[in-house]
Amino acid sequence: MSQVLLPDTMTAIGFDNPGGPDVLRAQDCPVPRPGTGEVLVKVAFAGVNRPDIVQREGRYPPPPGASPIPGLEIAGEVVAVGEGVDEPITGQHVCALVSGGGYAQYCVARAAHCLPVPDTLSLAEAAALPETLFTVWHNVFERAYARDGETILVHGGTSGIGTMATMLGKLFGLCVIVTCGSDEKCARAIEIGADHAINYKTNDFVEEVARITQDRGVEIVLDMVAGDYVTRNLRCLAPDGRHVTIAVQGGTKAEINMAVVMARRYTLTGSTLRPRSDTFKALLAQEIVANAWPFVAEGRLRPVMDEVFPLADAATAHARMEAGDHIGKIVLRA
Amino acid sequence: MSQVLLPDTMTAIGFDNPGGPDVLRAQDCPVPRPGTGEVLVKVAFAGVNRPDIVQREGRYPPPPGASPIPGLEIAGEVVAVGEGVDEPITGQHVCALVSGGGYAQYCVARAAHCLPVPDTLSLAEAAALPETLFTVWHNVFERAYARDGETILVHGGTSGIGTMATMLGKLFGLCVIVTCGSDEKCARAIEIGADHAINYKTNDFVEEVARITQDRGVEIVLDMVAGDYVTRNLRCLAPDGRHVTIAVQGGTKAEINMAVVMARRYTLTGSTLRPRSDTFKALLAQEIVANAWPFVAEGRLRPVMDEVFPLADAATAHARMEAGDHIGKIVLRA
Repeated sequence: MSQVLLPDTMTAIGFDNPGGPDVLRAQDCPVPRPGTGEVLVKVAFAGVNRPDIVQREGRYPPPPGASPIPGLEIAGEVVAVGEGVDEPITGQHVCALVSGGGYAQYCVARAAHCLPVPDTLSLAEAAALPETLFTVWHNVFERAYARDGETILVHGGTSGIGTMATMLGKLFGLCVIVTCGSDEKCARAIEIGADHAINYKTNDFVEEVARITQDRGVEIVLDMVAGDYVTRNLRCLAPDGRHVTIAVQGGTKAEINMAVVMARRYTLTGSTLRPRSDTFKALLAQEIVANAWPFVAEGRLRPVMDEVFPLADAATAHARMEAGDHIGKIVLRA
Repeated sequence: MSQVLLPDTMTAIGFDNPGGPDVLRAQDCPVPRPGTGEVLVKVAFAGVNRPDIVQREGRYPPPPGASPIPGLEIAGEVVAVGEGVDEPITGQHVCALVSGGGYAQYCVARAAHCLPVPDTLSLAEAAALPETLFTVWHNVFERAYARDGETILVHGGTSGIGTMATMLGKLFGLCVIVTCGSDEKCARAIEIGADHAINYKTNDFVEEVARITQDRGVEIVLDMVAGDYVTRNLRCLAPDGRHVTIAVQGGTKAEINMAVVMARRYTLTGSTLRPRSDTFKALLAQEIVANAWPFVAEGRLRPVMDEVFPLADAATAHARMEAGDHIGKIVLRA
């Protein structure tokens, strides 16, 4: 790595035992050193994501080799580079998808997983992009093959994922139907760009989707609920429809009628981002730089921001996400 | 249509009310006339397929516009052509995928759904190819994206579909594992080309697949059982595995763990051939002519033949298929 003056220790957020938000606490850690192909980022902001909560609860352990510190996305300045990083990236502002360790003053990232922060974006906004952008891009466009003119049903329309799916969907010519848990959230989802927003607490979303699509159904469901939603999701799908699961917040077991899957030629699939290979994530970053980043640079794609908390208040940030009243992304300031 | 001498009536196999094999009976029908883009085939042989049985039981009605006479594949001589069929096809021996009406002395087929019968193949063999070849080609290569070097698990290894999947799989570089209901059938499946055959009555196929693949799993499951097999099939799948359902002989309801689908990036899909558009089937026929038919012409791909019955004995043919003792294809002689 290049020679820079770095402190030996930093503040990071960790937990000794799994539990509620209160188990999160600031701790002193060694500043990590970038390995081959890696950069060290002085973190300005770190995004908060639902997998961080599941990790804190002890139900989503970090993959082998990943930092035990939570945090899957960061933005900040590159302050050191490891072997094999030949681009003149030191001193640049980047945001990055990381495999952990984001809730800290310094974080290591693969150089190939960094995206340049354009002038149109604050560092807080930049920190709020990678996880949802990588997740939505891969699942909606690469796994579900979304094409312009198609209709997508997105649950959790005001969540980080939901708002990103709405914005990307609109930029790429999709009709976007979202579900939300209140009329206020529905109104906000429409402002963000959704064509239709269904209050799932006061309406049956299956009936509403049938009404909106005139019984044609949607081509794609982006599912983060699973459980008994799956049966209902499939009732929303048009023939040749694709159902992509990216979280299982409503439970894991789904009862599926395989005769319907066969007769209507449905495809059910899903993925999680964190355990994918470095190579996969680097290829995905290239796809995003080529296809979505121009919209970011033009200021046409920017994350919906909920609230920024100091790093030391990570527990409050988690509690806010768990309460479900947030709209868009929650971010920590390092 | 061109001017030829055709009888006004013919013998076909129909049924007045759904039921067991005995409801099938010979009846006099008008000889159909080919419409635009269609040819009339003097049927030499017609293949028997499981959907014919389900149709006879009243559980799979013909799609709108299709003949009520059973029979989804035929071979014979083209004796008349309709408007818009410009190829000099009259007098040629063809086999064809048809949307119904195969159990008859004459049957209409789309010209674009006919394949030429090469010298290497008898007409009885030719009649036994289209349904399984179209079904396996589409589901294994187009829906499940089979690539050489991958491993496929096929249930019903000695069925028409199972034998075709085995042969096509081997021609295209797959490792083929089949399940069968007896040691005799397992031995026959190995002769036909399967790399491994599991007697599902004496062994747990999940355990056997794990043993054979050294816990790696298979990339593809070709599923014609559905029901509670689905859970077990998924336990056989490697990460990024594809599960394709083409029949639901074991029931329709499957309980699926969506967390596993997501974490292992499974894809579940399926299809049925008969309701697809004429255009889809024509494109599929072109794919097959380009990719599989050269193997037929070389004599390297020919159907495994079980038994040929006279058309009048269609009930016996159905009873044989339902008994499950057949190996390969059952065919009717018109």
